[in-house]
Formats: sequence, C-alpha cells, structure tokens
Amino acid sequence: MVFDTLTRKYICKGLKTDMAQDKKQVEQITDMEVDFAQWYTDVCKKAELIDYSSIKGMFIYRPYGYAIWENIQKELDARFKATGHENVSLPMLIPESLLQKEKDHVEGFAPECAWVTMGGSEKLEERYCIRPTSETLFCEHYKNIIHSWRDLPKLYNQWCSVLRWEKTSRPFLRHREFLWQEGHTMHATEEEAREETKRMLNIYADFLENVLAMPVVKGRKTDKEKFNGAEETYTVECMMHDKKALQAGTSHYFGDGFAKAFDITFTGKDNQLHHPHQTSWGVSTRMIGGLIMTHGDNNGLVLPPRIAPIQVIIIPVAQHKPGVIEANQAVMDRLIKAGFRVKMDDSDQSAGWKFAEYEMKGVPLRLELGPKDIEKNQCVLARRDSGEKSFVSLDGIEETVAAMLDSIHDGLYARAKKNLEDNTYACSSLEEVREKMQERGGFAKTMWCGDEACEIRMKEEAGVTSRCMPLEQEHLGDVCPICGKPAKHMIYWGVAY
Amino acid sequence: MVFDTLTRKYICKGLKTDMAQDKKQVEQITDMEVDFAQWYTDVCKKAELIDYSSIKGMFIYRPYGYAIWENIQKELDARFKATGHENVSLPMLIPESLLQKEKDHVEGFAPECAWVTMGGSEKLEERYCIRPTSETLFCEHYKNIIHSWRDLPKLYNQWCSVLRWEKTSRPFLRHREFLWQEGHTMHATEEEAREETKRMLNIYADFLENVLAMPVVKGRKTDKEKFNGAEETYTVECMMHDKKALQAGTSHYFGDGFAKAFDITFTGKDNQLHHPHQTSWGVSTRMIGGLIMTHGDNNGLVLPPRIAPIQVIIIPVAQHKPGVIEANQAVMDRLIKAGFRVKMDDSDQSAGWKFAEYEMKGVPLRLELGPKDIEKNQCVLARRDSGEKSFVSLDGIEETVAAMLDSIHDGLYARAKKNLEDNTYACSSLEEVREKMQERGGFAKTMWCGDEACEIRMKEEAGVTSRCMPLEQEHLGDVCPICGKPAKHMIYWGVAY
Repeated sequence: MVFDTLTRKYICKGLKTDMAQDKKQVEQITDMEVDFAQWYTDVCKKAELIDYSSIKGMFIYRPYGYAIWENIQKELDARFKATGHENVSLPMLIPESLLQKEKDHVEGFAPECAWVTMGGSEKLEERYCIRPTSETLFCEHYKNIIHSWRDLPKLYNQWCSVLRWEKTSRPFLRHREFLWQEGHTMHATEEEAREETKRMLNIYADFLENVLAMPVVKGRKTDKEKFNGAEETYTVECMMHDKKALQAGTSHYFGDGFAKAFDITFTGKDNQLHHPHQTSWGVSTRMIGGLIMTHGDNNGLVLPPRIAPIQVIIIPVAQHKPGVIEANQAVMDRLIKAGFRVKMDDSDQSAGWKFAEYEMKGVPLRLELGPKDIEKNQCVLARRDSGEKSFVSLDGIEETVAAMLDSIHDGLYARAKKNLEDNTYACSSLEEVREKMQERGGFAKTMWCGDEACEIRMKEEAGVTSRCMPLEQEHLGDVCPICGKPAKHMIYWGVAY
Repeated sequence: MVFDTLTRKYICKGLKTDMAQDKKQVEQITDMEVDFAQWYTDVCKKAELIDYSSIKGMFIYRPYGYAIWENIQKELDARFKATGHENVSLPMLIPESLLQKEKDHVEGFAPECAWVTMGGSEKLEERYCIRPTSETLFCEHYKNIIHSWRDLPKLYNQWCSVLRWEKTSRPFLRHREFLWQEGHTMHATEEEAREETKRMLNIYADFLENVLAMPVVKGRKTDKEKFNGAEETYTVECMMHDKKALQAGTSHYFGDGFAKAFDITFTGKDNQLHHPHQTSWGVSTRMIGGLIMTHGDNNGLVLPPRIAPIQVIIIPVAQHKPGVIEANQAVMDRLIKAGFRVKMDDSDQSAGWKFAEYEMKGVPLRLELGPKDIEKNQCVLARRDSGEKSFVSLDGIEETVAAMLDSIHDGLYARAKKNLEDNTYACSSLEEVREKMQERGGFAKTMWCGDEACEIRMKEEAGVTSRCMPLEQEHLGDVCPICGKPAKHMIYWGVAY
C-alpha cells in the first residue's frame, strides 16, 4: 500500500488500513482478561524477548530481552560499585562434599541440582553440581583470603547464571537456568553485616521503584520462607496486574553459621580469632517477568522508560520525499547526543507494521516526522502508556522528550501503586482471608503469633503463603486470627509466582 | 616507621627503608630469567588476579583480575555493537543428540565435554554436556527464527563461560572453565559471511594492538589447526616475552555446512530456498595471560594504560599533615572528572608497602603529593614501565597524565613489536628451523607446499606447530623446504601456549 502522507489526516487513514492488515499480528495476543497466563506467554514471544530451547525449562534470551537485562545490569552494577562492591567470577561447579558442609543449605538445594558425573570419557570420583547458588564456593574462597581484620569487609558480587532443576517452568519467572547477580559479603561484626543486608534491600527497592516503576513492600520472610541456611531473609514483594505476588529480590543475613561450617576465621584488632559475619543478596531476570506483568497491556509490552532498550522510536513519514530521512536523522542525532536511547526505522515496512511492531515492543515514545511537520518545525509524539498523541515543536525537543519520559515513568508507577494499595486489605480471620483472596486476590494483611503451625494452616485452608512481615508494621489487633494467641507481627499473605 | 616527609630527599630515605621491610613480598616473585613459568604463576597470584578452587583447572577470577576482564568486555562490546551486533544468552547445556548433528564438530569437542547425567535425584534420559562452545545451540535457535531474507543477517554475540575438560591447566591460559565471548552470525551470501569473518579478525587485531599494546600477526590456520567444523579459521598470533606464541583470538568461516546439518533455510528475494552462510569468532580471558607475559617484568605486572583498572594511583605523602589529604583528593577529583580511572590510597600502610603493592599490580602511573609539593604547586609522577620519576606542575595535570599514559602505551607496544620482529626469521630447511628454535625460540617462517604430511614432520622433527599463514605473504623461495615440492604459502612456525 502506498501512502500519500502529506496531510496528517491522510496518514491516519493509511494507518488504519495498514493496522487492519497487521491486525493478525496483534490478534495473536490473548487478552489478559481472558487468560492472563496466555497473555503473558504471548507477550514474551511476540515482543521477541525469549525463545524456547530443546531442553525443558532452559530458555534463550533474545536480543530485545537481553538488552533489558543489560540495562538492569548497568544500573545495578553502578549502585553496587558506588557502595564499595567488587565483581568476581567463581567456578560454575560445586563438588558434592563442598555443598554438604552446611546442613540446612544442602537440604534445600540438593533436590534441585543438576549433577556432572563424567569429564570427557572418564567417570568422576566425586560428582559436581552446577551451582544453584554460590554461598559454598564463596566460603571456600573466603577461607583462603581472609586472615586479618585488614582483609574485611569483603564485598563481592558475581553476575552469572545458576541452575535449579525445577519441575515446572515459565519464561523469566521460573527457569532451570537463569541469569542473576549474587552478592556475597563478609564482615568483622554482626552489626556491620546486618547493615549490609538492609543496605542492599534498600538498593533493590530504590531500583525497582525509581527505574522499573514497580512499587514494593519491604519486609522480612518467616522462618518457613527464608533462604536455606540464612538466619534472616529480607524481601521486596511486588504485586502483578493479576494481583499475584512476585518476590523481586532477597537479601540474607547468615550470622557466622557458614563461617563456622567452613572454618573461616580472622585475627581481630584484639589479636583474637573471630568468625566473620556473612550476607548474600540477589536479583534475577525474573524482574523482567515482573515488569511485563506490572505494566503490560493488551497491545503488548509497556516498558518503563528508564530501562527501555529503545526509549524513542523515530518513524519517518513519507520517507521517500526529499529531505525527510535527513530531517529524521537530524532529530535522532540530537536525541542521542542528549543521552537518549533512540532508533529510527526507515525500513521498507509499512507505517502500520512499524506502529504495531513498536507498540508490541513497548517502546515508551514514538516520534513521527513528515514533510508537513518539517515545514512547521514540529513532530508528533505518541505515548505508549496512554496512546495520547501530540504535536510538539522541534525547538527544545530534548527537554520535551525528557519530560514526557519522566511523565510516563511517574504514570506507570502511580498506576502500579494504586493497584497495590487498592488490593491490600486487613483481615481479622482465616475465613475472611480465604473468602477475600478467592474473590479479589491481592495481599491480605493480618496479625500473626509467629508460629509456623498457623502459617501452615493459612496455606492449607486459605491457599495463601506468607509474603513478608513488612518493615513498616501496623497494629491491626492484639491476637493471631488463626490461633487466638498473642500476636507478634503484622504479616502479608498472598498467592505468589 | 614514621616519616618526616617534608623534604623529597627524606622521603626517598624513608622509602628505601620501607622497601627493605617490604622486600619479602617482592622477593616471592621468581625472576622470569630463572623460571618463566614460575614467574608467571607468581604474578597471577601476587597481583591478586586469580585464585585456585578445589576443582582442578577451575579458577577464581579475583576482583583485580575480573576488573581487567570488565574493561576488555567494555571495549570489545562497544566495537561489536558499533558494527551492528546484538547480545543474547543461550543455555549452558547441550543435549548429546544436538552436539552430534555436525560430524567434525562433535569429534573435536566430545572428548573434552563435562556431562550432566542427573537432574535432582533422577537419571536423565539423555545426557547433556556443558557447552564447550555454542555453534550447535545457535544453529538450533537460528532454525526457529530465520525464515526469510528479511531475517538476515543475524549478528549475535554471547558473553559467557564455557567448559572444556582439559588434562592440564594454567591460570588464564588453559582453564577447564573460562570466560569468553562467542559471536555467531548468519548471512544470505558467502561473500557477506567471508567479509564478516575478516571484519571481526580486524576488530580483534585493532583491539589487541591499540588497547592491549600487543602486536599481532594476522593469518589463516592450516586445515590441521583450524576449528572443528570450520571451512577456514583466521587467527591473531602474539609473541610472549619468552618468545612462545599465543593464539589470542580466532574467527571462523563455516560456509553452509552447519546450516545443512541443522536444516536452516530462508526464502531469498528470488523466492527460492537457500541455506545461510555462517561465521563464529571468539576471544577469552587468555588475553589476560597474554598481556601479563607480554608486558610484565621482575617486579610484577605491567598493565597497558588503556585496560588498567587503576590508571593512576595517588599516594599522599605525609598524609597526617594538615591539608595533604584534601590536596590529594582535589587532584583525584580533577583526574576522575577528566575520565581517568584513579584510586587514592590513604590507608595506614607505609609508603614503602604502597609503592611495592601498586608496582606489583602494574598500575601505569603513581602520583605522589606531599606538603612541599603543595607549596610548589607540583607533584611527582612515577612511570611503572621505566621507573622514571619526574616533578610536574599541577597546572594542566590532566593533559600531562594523558600524554604520559599514551607514551607508556606506545612504549609498551614498541618494545613488544621489537621482540616480535627481532625473533621472527626466515629459514630454508627443517634442520634450520629445529636448530634456531632450540637456540632462540620465536617464529620461524618458511615456504610450505600445503600438505599436512610436511606439517606433521615439522612438528615431529623440529618440535613446532604451524601458527598461521600470514595475510601478508612474503616470497621466500619456490619450494617447500620439507618435501621439495612447489611451495604454495609462506607460513609461521612456533611453540605455542
């Protein structure tokens, strides 16, 4: 189809026809109201974030999906380095005997390890597991390099993939192999290690809210839900569009349990031997699943501007006309110079195809510039979040784009925050939790005595797991609504990914 | 020991005493003339680049070693992206049946695979190898996503670790698990794929010479030495300080062999089905081994400035005196603002300890600034390469540092280039190659008929392998000096890491 795109009106007409032609592509996404799980899988595939491999549960991160991860890495890595952390790389294999050194840890992870038993044509004397997490490897290394108080703290982080032999899988949310970062730190004192645990939780919360536009609930996990081998696990929990919970990041305080199991000691300033205190903390590519389910809509992905691989897609209108490509190129150069991530699509695909393509891919802003616009020194900016289109002057386009991207971020955050707040409610009995969860999902908050027995009853009878004991506690009553004993904590319940 | 560091002379005196105290640390490095292999291992350990793990051949990249790799990644990744490549992440496991699809490939790699045979407590129906390289995985993915000429070229790269179950190991040079990047591309035509193969070879050569200050010989591998499954392998070969060769990077042209084995086809503009043409190319952390053995000396590591994690180490002199730390901080801020990687060491270690420490770590420039200097608006700059010290004005310190870092790069490159040129020589008989290699090492260049039989004889009788047929050919004679038949190529021989 050939456009005559000299008038805005005419473009819109052309566009509609093209959109109809390209409808097939859009139609292949299931509406989220019809089947949220299918909608999610459709978006992952159609936005070209991920592909399946021949091994169940092992996925391919495609360029667009991986580019989101690269931006996440860049943002987080800068925050880690600014707080004194250094990157290292440890082996991917753990000898079985090493994994077994800390009892709780091995009990949790051994059932989901993949085991290497052959090297070349030889059967190995001891089998090795592919790391499901690296506490044991870090401890072995720390034993070699920590001797004196001068060697502390050790603030290490590793970007890598880990492997857990899960039975079920889902793009980004549950992979057998997934990309993540794992921080592992050692400290001279308990106080310093506890501070580190909280510091990293706060870095995750700040990143999720201010970069991914995902509001969080910060809290502590119950003993039942904490990390294998940890004394305490802190978490940031998010609410997805379907009102289920996503644990987006965790930060663990280990005390000196691993240090004792691995015989790690240092000579203090007091000339005595001490065990160091340990933390670990991690986030993974499941955050990408989180942002899809927080911001996406029935037209596809909606990316928060601060993480989007392409922040502005430029689509030349009537690009065959003289001077159009050059004018679009000039705007692109200006925006790139101002620090934005920009792409121009001057391929021979129809405008309709292009509009649908970048809508599906969740690009925050679309900039259209044709001959009429050039005459008037203006362009069209179309927002992915609201669909709103406006004519703006090319003078100060950098400031206009910056303001609009910030406005999109704020809007996405506010909408997600509203979803979280509207769907978090106090309950005063197990029955109320069960009923309300069935009826509307979300987070039910109650008081809790702290006994695991009550937590298990809640799971069995109301179908929810404890999400966390929020750091910001509220007093909802004096007794545990499950057993009637005195309450110790306010706690959130939900159904989690 | 307490310094009175108000006069430069006095500092030097104090320094000497400290240096004596710290001699123990320095003495632990073997002289390279005594035992080059031991010198190398000493540097890797003492400069804190690497540590051993409990699995033979699997190493820990420590923060300083990993920081070099991060800088290598940053430089190369920018070059890859500037030439249109995109990053992806594929699974680490390859089903045995997938690995077997291309005959030459599996024959080469199967003997050195680590095999996963258990997932959790279940024996797997098919065993999986941990990727030794990912051609097969990329082909499986490409079969899914390449359908039309519009889908080409695919220019993918992956940063990851791979595993090869080697019998022997050596830090950076031969690991069972090592970090690398692997580019895998698909093209519509042979011509375009061949261009890509050369383009990437040139990017490696440019990076090695202009960033790592390592001069290269670019050439093509013989059929015997080429990559398993490739039609042609190109290489960049470097000469180490001990005159042995290091293959620093390779770029392979595959033709459509894998595409046929994996049944990858696309519909061309001619509406016919075609097989795409393929390349792959990679460099690894062995480049770090290369730069140690190219530039290091008996005092430790010497890092080329453009890759050094710390380009300038600032050591405050008499730091307890009022204003000294502040003045050093101000200089650091200026240098950081100018884009340099700078660290200030104001710890309570002695100046002697600090000098020895950063010398061992190969930091290109040391900046000393004390009370007398502050008065005179000057500082001392000490070069790691030559040991030369000079007083320079603080006015324009940014330009002075930039010029000195460039001069260090140029000096390191020139010295390595001289080593390469002085130790590359023409030979006209197998005997001459054997004698000269025993006597002086380096690269022997001869003519060659192209027969593998002659290559094998050279290996058996002169103890050398073919390094490459340089792209810049010379005519040294008309016949192969081994068999006397007409010569087809000029070829380099050497002993390789």
